[in-house]
Amino acid sequence: MTLRTYPRFVTLEGGEGAGKSTVLKALREVLDATGREVVSTREPGGTPLAEQIRGLLLDTHHEPPTIDTELLLMFAARAQHVRETILPALERGAWVISDRFTDASFAYQGAARGGDPSFIAELERRVVGIAPAMTLLLDVPVAIGLQRARGRGASDRIEGERDDFFERVREGYLARAGADAQRFRVIDATQTVEAVAAEAVAHLRRLIEAAP
Amino acid sequence: MTLRTYPRFVTLEGGEGAGKSTVLKALREVLDATGREVVSTREPGGTPLAEQIRGLLLDTHHEPPTIDTELLLMFAARAQHVRETILPALERGAWVISDRFTDASFAYQGAARGGDPSFIAELERRVVGIAPAMTLLLDVPVAIGLQRARGRGASDRIEGERDDFFERVREGYLARAGADAQRFRVIDATQTVEAVAAEAVAHLRRLIEAAP
Ligand SMILES: Nc1ncnc2c1ncn2[C@@H]1O[C@H](COP(=O)(O)OP(=O)(O)OP(=O)(O)O)[C@@H](O)[C@H]1O
Ligand SMILES: Nc1ncnc2c1ncn2[C@@H]1O[C@H](COP(=O)(O)OP(=O)(O)OP(=O)(O)O)[C@@H](O)[C@H]1O
Ligand SMILES: [Mg+2]
Ligand SMILES: [Mg+2]
Repeated sequence: MTLRTYPRFVTLEGGEGAGKSTVLKALREVLDATGREVVSTREPGGTPLAEQIRGLLLDTHHEPPTIDTELLLMFAARAQHVRETILPALERGAWVISDRFTDASFAYQGAARGGDPSFIAELERRVVGIAPAMTLLLDVPVAIGLQRARGRGASDRIEGERDDFFERVREGYLARAGADAQRFRVIDATQTVEAVAAEAVAHLRRLIEAAP
Repeated sequence: MTLRTYPRFVTLEGGEGAGKSTVLKALREVLDATGREVVSTREPGGTPLAEQIRGLLLDTHHEPPTIDTELLLMFAARAQHVRETILPALERGAWVISDRFTDASFAYQGAARGGDPSFIAELERRVVGIAPAMTLLLDVPVAIGLQRARGRGASDRIEGERDDFFERVREGYLARAGADAQRFRVIDATQTVEAVAAEAVAHLRRLIEAAP
């Protein structure tokens, strides 16, 4: 692999309603409490332009993007996010926690939509170039995650997909985690919020010890 | 090359103010007069979503895109344009004339901004897949083109570039035309509107004879 791994870069992955945003807050509080600089961010998004691209990806006021268009918009936003937000923070020594990153493209645009994983890997190599030291995969059965997410109200374009789409997302994530056990920590996200957060925080503390 | 060439697909290329939109109208009138179905379109744009991507590329209300972001947004818009507008028209036998197409990415994101042409070619192969039978390159010295274009008022983000940027665009286009004399027709666009249009129309008439 030609990606550069940053020891203070952590990503959260998982399907809809797995609890990523909830865990992100818990991790951020741990780092804040130690006085470390933390940038918490999300994808698609994380810069003003990338948030506009997010709007095009999720809204339903125009025709849906083709698979290729969706994939390229995701990587356009990610290229911007890496260059403008993530790398500047990492280079000055801050911690960065991102709610989704490149693994999400392998799961959603790859496994779920059928995009060619070798093309996704080439986009990663060409326009992303970096990898997190640790990725927490919050794994939850599709029905439970969707129930949690849909409790929040109106669905965006991707939340409106069928259940078999999200089954492929889940399998795609688990396959990636299985292929890179060094980077991934899979957390059973059917547990209580407190139990999930405690596991995530324990993983973070070990990472902080390794890369203070 | 693994691109499929469509005999009724024509593209117009050239720098700012070369006269592409003016020539497009003249070509369209010729085809209209013979009763043929013609779809005239433009890039970036050509579908509702692709026009929104154009807005993100050209406006200046957010931070500028990185080179990679600009390149991927262009190809995201192009993938959508090909699938939703150009291919359906060509497949039903219509003529399609596009004001800019993939060559513009080689000239602007490649030659002018320094993007890797082998990556651009891979994006073309992966998400575009088609090529025009004829590309009219309207060639004009940068100063003349900019004077014409700026006569129209407020500049967008790309029109606001420096002159050496547009010199590289021009050289990039001429190099591509030189490498594919079979597809390209280079027209001296310093001539009068009438002379430029007459040359373009003569090329179109020969194409119509070859692919009625
Ligand atoms: N372990 C949990 N048990 C029960 N409910 C949870 C758990 N974790 C999160 N929730 C609740 O489920 C909903 C979704 O959680 P959250 O927004 O953190 O998920 P997410 O993975 O960020 O979702 P999305 O992918 O839609 O952004 C919230 O209402 C949250 O309070
Ligand atoms: N051959 C020509 N001689 C003089 N003026 C011209 C000629 N062709 C076009 N113009 C004028 O120059 C201006 C720009 O022309 P046009 O809009 O067709 O160029 P364009 O290549 O489409 O520009 P842009 O890249 O900005 O879209 C218009 O005002 C047009 O009337
Ligand atoms: Mg969330
Ligand atoms: Mg024009």
